[in-house]
Amino acid sequence: MSAPTPVFLAACRREPVPYTPIWVMRQAGRYLPEYRQVRSRVSFEALTRTPELAAEVTLQPLRRFALDAAILFSDIMTPLSGMGVDLTFEPGPVIGQPIRTDAAIDALRPLEPLRDVPFVLDTVRLVRAEAPRGVPLIGFAGGPFTLLCYLVGGRPSKEFETARAFLYESPRSAERLLDRLADAMAVYLGAQADAGAQALMMFESWGGLLAPPEFERFALRGAIRTLTALRARGVPLIYYLNQGCALLDRLASLPADVFGVDWRMPLGAVRRVLGPQKAVQGNLDPAALFAPPDELARQAESVLREAGGAPGHIFNLGHGIWPQTDPDALARLVDIVHDRSARGGVHA
Amino acid sequence: MSAPTPVFLAACRREPVPYTPIWVMRQAGRYLPEYRQVRSRVSFEALTRTPELAAEVTLQPLRRFALDAAILFSDIMTPLSGMGVDLTFEPGPVIGQPIRTDAAIDALRPLEPLRDVPFVLDTVRLVRAEAPRGVPLIGFAGGPFTLLCYLVGGRPSKEFETARAFLYESPRSAERLLDRLADAMAVYLGAQADAGAQALMMFESWGGLLAPPEFERFALRGAIRTLTALRARGVPLIYYLNQGCALLDRLASLPADVFGVDWRMPLGAVRRVLGPQKAVQGNLDPAALFAPPDELARQAESVLREAGGAPGHIFNLGHGIWPQTDPDALARLVDIVHDRSARGGVHA
Repeated sequence: MSAPTPVFLAACRREPVPYTPIWVMRQAGRYLPEYRQVRSRVSFEALTRTPELAAEVTLQPLRRFALDAAILFSDIMTPLSGMGVDLTFEPGPVIGQPIRTDAAIDALRPLEPLRDVPFVLDTVRLVRAEAPRGVPLIGFAGGPFTLLCYLVGGRPSKEFETARAFLYESPRSAERLLDRLADAMAVYLGAQADAGAQALMMFESWGGLLAPPEFERFALRGAIRTLTALRARGVPLIYYLNQGCALLDRLASLPADVFGVDWRMPLGAVRRVLGPQKAVQGNLDPAALFAPPDELARQAESVLREAGGAPGHIFNLGHGIWPQTDPDALARLVDIVHDRSARGGVHA
Repeated sequence: MSAPTPVFLAACRREPVPYTPIWVMRQAGRYLPEYRQVRSRVSFEALTRTPELAAEVTLQPLRRFALDAAILFSDIMTPLSGMGVDLTFEPGPVIGQPIRTDAAIDALRPLEPLRDVPFVLDTVRLVRAEAPRGVPLIGFAGGPFTLLCYLVGGRPSKEFETARAFLYESPRSAERLLDRLADAMAVYLGAQADAGAQALMMFESWGGLLAPPEFERFALRGAIRTLTALRARGVPLIYYLNQGCALLDRLASLPADVFGVDWRMPLGAVRRVLGPQKAVQGNLDPAALFAPPDELARQAESVLREAGGAPGHIFNLGHGIWPQTDPDALARLVDIVHDRSARGGVHA
């Protein structure tokens, strides 16, 4: 007898589910006192590189809330250290020598996960061993363009001007860097799946800074290269794009199973553009967790209704949960989503 | 004999024009050495409050480039000091006592421009006296919701979490504050027009942080209130929205003549949604100014083509020009836009 497919994985595959599954981006994070307690003892970087601690904070939200998936605690920049990038967190990622020449690009080492990020793979194994039954683990990586934003810019900035100018100044070098990063992320995500990750997610957090032609030429090029390499594994692939409203019709060429979008794009419109073969993930405004309980319920029901029913919908926030959020509000949200979707009343 | 209507104003009214007019957001700014020279002697705040200097930097870009409009040098937060807000620039606007209660909202004084911002009105008069013939002056104000973001949050932040949470926590107070700000901005813009501003623009820079229902309830409420009060003046009204792709169909109810959008939304799609009665303004990616000349020309032609012809199109960047931009690139852009649109070749 085999165990039933976890609800989250069934939803990724658009199979029938008893209720809409929910997890939230950054669910292992600063809004939880138990996370802050761990972080008070170690740096962010040490936390990402110590499997016992990274697994502990990955599991923390699952002890509090009836979440339907876990997501690896790590940072999208973490694997780049292994490629020879001089990376520190202050607290945002800072690159000692920004990558802006072909020589610097060619000096990047191909990623070898067993050598370069063994601690990530150990974290995956530890979480798999300890996570509750029926709660799959999502592995993740940054989208190649989002990684380029940090590597070229050198440090986080609001508009990533240096990286965006680089695309126009040196488009061939940008493509060269994107291809390197895409190949590295394919290997990285593949290794996470080998270690036990049951779904793989790409965060293209800054793709929405690009106009459609540049998005297609640069961001989509990289994402397609990574996801195509992973397609044959049969693990659900999730692609998240922030600020991507004007880019949605370009995503059809992406070999992903699930598309996550931010809170500004109604999921009904997303489904109409992407078609019935794709699942959607999202997209409550993280600010809605500050509403009184009845308004939070109304907002959550609106997302469920826009998504058009449980099959093929994974509930999430439209962006990471804010550090100042009351954990009790997330507890309420999880209950609302499970309760309303199981009853199906939101489709009336 | 009356002088011919300036090209910029004709385009705002969708009248026939000999070429597509162009100006760029933040054209009076840090990318110009002559601006930096003035700023090296006075603080930003002093610059905005000294009519001779504010007029000087407003006029600087007109001496270098064949721009078709001037825009008042000021800050969207400047009039709020006159309402009793404890405002400093460090360099972003910082509010000593953030406005988060009904008592604080009710303590805001109604704006009386002659008493509170005489230096702005004097700047308008000076610029009008000195600007080249045929180059109209645009007055401006912040959108009420964008002003709320700063007033509630207290200082600039990437996501304006405090202000966005406030909308969900205290929606009635938010509406109360928006109405106050909307009335103040109507009076403020009206006074600029009385002093000589020939078009009025509202910058709703952060409206795109809201999901459509909250945009409609909060941001649009304020903008409609301000613009409706100005409608009867017959001065062209321009509304700029950043990150507003998912909100475009909600804008139809706004009594504006011209809609400016960021670089991510193709102008052809904007025109299809807004209809033939509205002019559009924009929307080259500010990063495109870093491209080699031939690629810059290709990018500018693409914007002209998307806009569908000169009548009812005002060329601009999709966001403010970056401080690190080479002024020569803007000179090239102005020539390209005038040349290509006069020849009409981009419509082939």
